[in-house]
Amino acid sequence: MTDIITIQNNVLTILEKVKMQLRTNPHFDSVKTKSNQNDLVTNRDIQIEKEVVAYLNEKFPNAKIISEEGFGNHPLDLSGLVFFVDPIDGTMNFVKSHDQFASMIGVYNNGQPLFGAILDVIQDQIYYGGTSIGAFVNNQKIPILADPPLNEVLITVSNHLLQSEMSKYQKLVAKSSGLRIFGSAGIVFTRLLLGKEYLYIGKFKPWDLAAGLAIGQAIGINATTIDEKPINMIKSQLVIVGTRCATQQALDVISRV
Amino acid sequence: MTDIITIQNNVLTILEKVKMQLRTNPHFDSVKTKSNQNDLVTNRDIQIEKEVVAYLNEKFPNAKIISEEGFGNHPLDLSGLVFFVDPIDGTMNFVKSHDQFASMIGVYNNGQPLFGAILDVIQDQIYYGGTSIGAFVNNQKIPILADPPLNEVLITVSNHLLQSEMSKYQKLVAKSSGLRIFGSAGIVFTRLLLGKEYLYIGKFKPWDLAAGLAIGQAIGINATTIDEKPINMIKSQLVIVGTRCATQQALDVISRV
Repeated sequence: MTDIITIQNNVLTILEKVKMQLRTNPHFDSVKTKSNQNDLVTNRDIQIEKEVVAYLNEKFPNAKIISEEGFGNHPLDLSGLVFFVDPIDGTMNFVKSHDQFASMIGVYNNGQPLFGAILDVIQDQIYYGGTSIGAFVNNQKIPILADPPLNEVLITVSNHLLQSEMSKYQKLVAKSSGLRIFGSAGIVFTRLLLGKEYLYIGKFKPWDLAAGLAIGQAIGINATTIDEKPINMIKSQLVIVGTRCATQQALDVISRV
Repeated sequence: MTDIITIQNNVLTILEKVKMQLRTNPHFDSVKTKSNQNDLVTNRDIQIEKEVVAYLNEKFPNAKIISEEGFGNHPLDLSGLVFFVDPIDGTMNFVKSHDQFASMIGVYNNGQPLFGAILDVIQDQIYYGGTSIGAFVNNQKIPILADPPLNEVLITVSNHLLQSEMSKYQKLVAKSSGLRIFGSAGIVFTRLLLGKEYLYIGKFKPWDLAAGLAIGQAIGINATTIDEKPINMIKSQLVIVGTRCATQQALDVISRV
């Protein structure tokens, strides 16, 4: 296995390049829909993903890459070193509000989280870390999170779930301090990492989760599927992410509805 | 009537003082609940409101003040010059996430919006303006907004409405580009002013709306009650705020549910 310092240096180097590109030129020339009218991809998602994949392929020729826009290599298993790449997470925000989007790279070894990095482009903040090194924002160490109960914390439930299973999640929101919706998994993870909120439920693709979970596990953030099974990082799943107490109380509420 | 330049200078002066206080010391010593478990007030809301009210009373001794924490003078009508003061809008965010809260002052003359100012404390941005002077953010003029259709825009529906009348607002969200929830009317107004979103529906107190509407009317943002009546700035109401086309389409969707 390649050592974590080499991984960290390379991931932060390529995300720094992405940051310079997106801050210098935050525009796009074309936008298309994917699975539905609100699932967007721009030429910038594609251009950035291609550059990140090319960089990682050069630096880590034996690693696999799973990436949002499909320019990785679609592995069937997670053996060895695997990079999960989301070039622009929150493409709708990138297109409509020009803020609250992120670039993310998560690095796993034999299916276990090793390292993650989330770049909040507009706020110019990079969050990174892993269980063996801790969590950081712009080189400042992030402390271990508190473990507050559900009624004391802000939570995020994805739009999709609110629309499809309202009665269940309505009850959950009512038991919390309030619902916040940002439209980018990466941005929500940055808020979880800083203890601004403590619970996040949604249907996630592997690249939505990989970076945030790798960083978060260092400071008390865990995740399971909504039926409390381990997450499968090859497929899309309904997942609950959060600190221990709020997560357990949320699962209790949801299972009783 | 006192001239608008005097009003602008004084409102921006007192909000600058509020900003320095809240940025220097963003903490609170005590927090209490008001109408429900998620309606909070801290000692800072009270301290700041008292200072703002004292300042305005000194500078505008003949004006009335309507303020969130009740240190204004509870007028029964809107004749003459009226200041609406919200010392910390988004107190839950102030307490839990330490960002995405605002201080707001709206100034009305005989019930008509004259001037408004919204301070985004953490982003260090002050939005201000009125129909006679235009809209500004940190002294930069904000252009007149575009008038996009509902399906092309991000929207905010308040937590309260999502919880209480889900079927109606679920349909509305599905017709938009997506739902965003920030937990502060002031923060949502700053996003409306910059065209990051174009529609906002919620149950509002006068001090939630006064500043944002006064600024927004200069660049194409309007508001009515949800049954398309003029807003009464003395009481709490269900209000739709937005640009023309998105607002009309939203009202069509809601009225058909």
